[in-house]
Amino acid sequence: MTPVTVAAPGLDTGDTAWLLAATALVLLMTPGLALFYGGMVRTKSVLNMLMMSFVSIALVTVVWLLAGYSLAFGDDAFGGLVGNLDHLGLADIGPDALTGGVPTLLFTTFQLTFAIITAALISGAVADRTKFAAWLVFVPVWTLLVYVPVAHWVWGPGGWIKDALGALDFAGGLVVEIASGASGLALALVVGPRIGFRKDAMRPHNLPMVILGAGLLWFGWLGFNGGSALAANGLAAASMLNTLVAGCTGLLGWLFVEQQRDGHPTTFGAASGAVAGLVAITPACGTVGVVGGAAVGLAAGVVCSYAVAWKFRFGYDDALDVVGVHFVGGVVGTLLIGLFATTAMTGGAEGLLYGGGAGQLLKQTVAVVAVAAYTFLVTYGIGKAIDRLMGLRASAEEEVTGLDQTLHAESAYDHGALGHAAPQSASLPRDRKTAP
Amino acid sequence: MTPVTVAAPGLDTGDTAWLLAATALVLLMTPGLALFYGGMVRTKSVLNMLMMSFVSIALVTVVWLLAGYSLAFGDDAFGGLVGNLDHLGLADIGPDALTGGVPTLLFTTFQLTFAIITAALISGAVADRTKFAAWLVFVPVWTLLVYVPVAHWVWGPGGWIKDALGALDFAGGLVVEIASGASGLALALVVGPRIGFRKDAMRPHNLPMVILGAGLLWFGWLGFNGGSALAANGLAAASMLNTLVAGCTGLLGWLFVEQQRDGHPTTFGAASGAVAGLVAITPACGTVGVVGGAAVGLAAGVVCSYAVAWKFRFGYDDALDVVGVHFVGGVVGTLLIGLFATTAMTGGAEGLLYGGGAGQLLKQTVAVVAVAAYTFLVTYGIGKAIDRLMGLRASAEEEVTGLDQTLHAESAYDHGALGHAAPQSASLPRDRKTAP
Amino acid sequence: MTPVTVAAPGLDTGDTAWLLAATALVLLMTPGLALFYGGMVRTKSVLNMLMMSFVSIALVTVVWLLAGYSLAFGDDAFGGLVGNLDHLGLADIGPDALTGGVPTLLFTTFQLTFAIITAALISGAVADRTKFAAWLVFVPVWTLLVYVPVAHWVWGPGGWIKDALGALDFAGGLVVEIASGASGLALALVVGPRIGFRKDAMRPHNLPMVILGAGLLWFGWLGFNGGSALAANGLAAASMLNTLVAGCTGLLGWLFVEQQRDGHPTTFGAASGAVAGLVAITPACGTVGVVGGAAVGLAAGVVCSYAVAWKFRFGYDDALDVVGVHFVGGVVGTLLIGLFATTAMTGGAEGLLYGGGAGQLLKQTVAVVAVAAYTFLVTYGIGKAIDRLMGLRASAEEEVTGLDQTLHAESAYDHGALGHAAPQSASLPRDRKTAP
Repeated sequence: MTPVTVAAPGLDTGDTAWLLAATALVLLMTPGLALFYGGMVRTKSVLNMLMMSFVSIALVTVVWLLAGYSLAFGDDAFGGLVGNLDHLGLADIGPDALTGGVPTLLFTTFQLTFAIITAALISGAVADRTKFAAWLVFVPVWTLLVYVPVAHWVWGPGGWIKDALGALDFAGGLVVEIASGASGLALALVVGPRIGFRKDAMRPHNLPMVILGAGLLWFGWLGFNGGSALAANGLAAASMLNTLVAGCTGLLGWLFVEQQRDGHPTTFGAASGAVAGLVAITPACGTVGVVGGAAVGLAAGVVCSYAVAWKFRFGYDDALDVVGVHFVGGVVGTLLIGLFATTAMTGGAEGLLYGGGAGQLLKQTVAVVAVAAYTFLVTYGIGKAIDRLMGLRASAEEEVTGLDQTLHAESAYDHGALGHAAPQSASLPRDRKTAP
Repeated sequence: MTPVTVAAPGLDTGDTAWLLAATALVLLMTPGLALFYGGMVRTKSVLNMLMMSFVSIALVTVVWLLAGYSLAFGDDAFGGLVGNLDHLGLADIGPDALTGGVPTLLFTTFQLTFAIITAALISGAVADRTKFAAWLVFVPVWTLLVYVPVAHWVWGPGGWIKDALGALDFAGGLVVEIASGASGLALALVVGPRIGFRKDAMRPHNLPMVILGAGLLWFGWLGFNGGSALAANGLAAASMLNTLVAGCTGLLGWLFVEQQRDGHPTTFGAASGAVAGLVAITPACGTVGVVGGAAVGLAAGVVCSYAVAWKFRFGYDDALDVVGVHFVGGVVGTLLIGLFATTAMTGGAEGLLYGGGAGQLLKQTVAVVAVAAYTFLVTYGIGKAIDRLMGLRASAEEEVTGLDQTLHAESAYDHGALGHAAPQSASLPRDRKTAP
Repeated sequence: MTPVTVAAPGLDTGDTAWLLAATALVLLMTPGLALFYGGMVRTKSVLNMLMMSFVSIALVTVVWLLAGYSLAFGDDAFGGLVGNLDHLGLADIGPDALTGGVPTLLFTTFQLTFAIITAALISGAVADRTKFAAWLVFVPVWTLLVYVPVAHWVWGPGGWIKDALGALDFAGGLVVEIASGASGLALALVVGPRIGFRKDAMRPHNLPMVILGAGLLWFGWLGFNGGSALAANGLAAASMLNTLVAGCTGLLGWLFVEQQRDGHPTTFGAASGAVAGLVAITPACGTVGVVGGAAVGLAAGVVCSYAVAWKFRFGYDDALDVVGVHFVGGVVGTLLIGLFATTAMTGGAEGLLYGGGAGQLLKQTVAVVAVAAYTFLVTYGIGKAIDRLMGLRASAEEEVTGLDQTLHAESAYDHGALGHAAPQSASLPRDRKTAP
């Protein structure tokens, strides 16, 4: 997703058309994530879960336009660590400015949608028990101190991971998946486990909502990864195909483990496996072929289907499996670039299995460690600071009663006396109307 | 959204690609609106609500192709008031005809999706109590007598608001938002308040459905506003960014008022605030910069969060806040063009705050008053006529029992004996499967 | 959807941008179908229904990449019946390969999304009673033995229906609709009727979910049909407009019949009618004008509204009306090309009503009979073979208890004690907050 830096001859309407559509697709992912998460929690906090995603859209957008874009994608200001302040408030960027063959304002907006969903992803780790007011503070601070620098390292002009290290991350394995996953772990540790964790069942209250969310995520992910080519070309096409393939093999891998281990393939497993595959292919979709894409997805589906149980063993309450799916899947995909990268895609690096030696794998490993460590530590610090200043966690009473009612004065569903048990003598269905 | 009138050298596949995608996005907004509205009503009339949107798709499409497109976008036939009859039935327009750089059939279809959602928007004002048969008559008549002339005034060749007055409306503040809002008020007055209005709570029966609808609306709105550039260029990008920004500041503004006034930020408020911001930026997205876009959205979020209570004070039952959000938001956005328009975007008009004087603000005000008055009065007349001819309102018994059962012989949900209280001993969730 | 075979001068970014977006749209149709179907079944098997669609995505993708694409779209290997093996595993296709003006990998992916939804469509005919393990075997076998050859006949290089016969199928009336419908009938006959068929009501458990699914399907169908032009041009625009129009007239036709026959227009009828119109226009959207498009949709809406009752008369349990809507609608649309084809669209064939004689109608009829017979017979054989090898049908106990609990160890909804009857004293809605 690194923008072309050579001067482009002018606007390409085809590239622009695809990036406009892709930006819309990525924006839809956050409402999709809201539903994916919202279906997983209990009825009493589904609205709070939806709200955490929706306010992330608003908060990240404001921060990004004020300073985030400039610090991430401005020319390097200090040692590959952060961009300069030339684009604060986007004051200098008009509709005619170009980045490669597309309007700079479009590149900005596309990148913004990535920052949004990354922040929203973290909410899954701290579901059902976090103060809404604390989340309103966390998101802008986290975006500026965690997301923005990492985006600069990996994709910004002169970023050290891209230029000095030479690690590859096509669409956000480091920037989106590992950053959100490690941050989710840190914040879950600060906020502590839900009341009843490891004792109560805490079943998803609405699995069709989870599946709807997964469907919207998959749809949007084609824009997320395919759009990261920043052009309508063969690289975009290959990235899209890899995205589809890896979601599929992730789904199959997870279901296979479930069948072997538990005796049943579940709907929740299918959704989780597809997302795990999509997470893992995110960094790799522009650098591996279709066989590599299938392998990356399959590996993530299998590994993540085990990783989601670690929270029970180690006792951190990553409520909706941000660590087990996004962190682990992101690591799997980022490392496997070191095995499967092919010059037919990248024009450059080759992975171990394609004759390129272990060099790229080493670079990928360094990048994973650096991003995981930085995002975990800084997020832990932010969480602790907020906890000290205003309290990060809802009261036990609020948590038990449910955040919807106590923090938002609402309840998700109100079917009253009707809707479920009403006698329906007037309501003969089509099935019966014309039956003999 | 005014089509380019100079001869274009030929089809631009990039512009066409974006407008094809944008048309699909705008079509999705009407199902999105159906869910947004459907979640807000009580369980007993959700299907009727969904149906009002879906039949609007069908009815407006037929009317538009027969005569609506020609009367709105045909060459001016009379004083800037209405187009001619050259394109009845689209008989003369083949796949090769161009409007600017895109196929004329595509421009037609894009415009059609705007007409569809404008009609569907009105249904929110008369929810829960309107005869379905009357709605089937209202929609085509209203489209021809209200939507089509206003579209010609504002966007058609020689339309008086565009050419004689010089008011700006990039994507439909006048044509879509004010027209639907003022019409909703008129029709709500004719049909009268719901039984129990100002007494019973009438809570939304399904807030996650409202949020899903809001998410689909926001997604589609990027095509609505970004597509109104009719090209894949910097103007489309800037419009899309403004659309995202204004939805965000609208959301934040509404939640801020709620927190101050009521002590809780609500999910319903977040959805309403985002929509208010999106409504207000619709006329302005192609004429203001990103700071202006943020201001427009914020103003709409704050103002509309108060405006939705006017119905209680003045006693009109605008059930789902079409007046409070679409009319008021549309007025806010259309007027603020007079303050925030910048030549960097429009190449022409400048707003008061950008050194252009009060001239544009005056033009915007005249346009608002003209469109509001015309659409209110004609819709009121149509409503009265339909009421006299066939009755506009369902019977009290139908309303109390619920329109789903009485008008459509259906009920939205049927969980039977299962689904809620079923013992689930066989159903251990993933949470428990691998726990110690 | 036949790819251009003459050498193209190079990649067209606009055409590529549209096909990238269209591919994403078609992929979304399968989650949309999952919800459309999932809402129709009873609460106890909604997850199984969703799963049948989601695993189809995964299974068809793997089969398609391994061999399906090559056998369908490779150069003809034997008498117009099947393609060669040159593209097994897509080994030879890099990001730079072109088909017409778009990357070949994109053409491959677009075609893959068609194969996915066709397999998923069949699940509606055997809903509520089919072994999940058997479905996992059926889908890959069916894709290879049924879908792939038919796709080659109709769209592949040298396919006999396209080249030798000269029948037209723009976007899949034969390949998608008739193939899935006839296969659904065959499989429903093998698996037998649900327990309680023709006795119990079996009402849809969630009609808003059906409507949501229908909305997503309609949205995606614009990419399905409009994308089949494989370019961003007037043909794509005309196909999209026809798709919108036919969905509308299908909806109106179905509701008209319901009103006359049953006295109520239903939501379920609106959704079914729109889908019937969309099915019928699929083969015809690129070959008929807008009047023809309206006629095709209307005919399908009327005919299918009767055809869905045939299952009661003849006793096959096509649970979710795959035969009544997809088979019948597909036949209607494919045949009506013989009446409504116009050279203004196709540049070639003319229908009976446009002065072209009965020739095209005869060709269309032959193609319908051939595809219906082949797909019915081979699917019947596959079903019988699977039934003998492993059993196709769930046990009576599993079926009565519900497939979700017995096959997947899950239940769709779990509202616990909260969510419905909770006292909400803290939860005054917006309606009341500021009321006098």
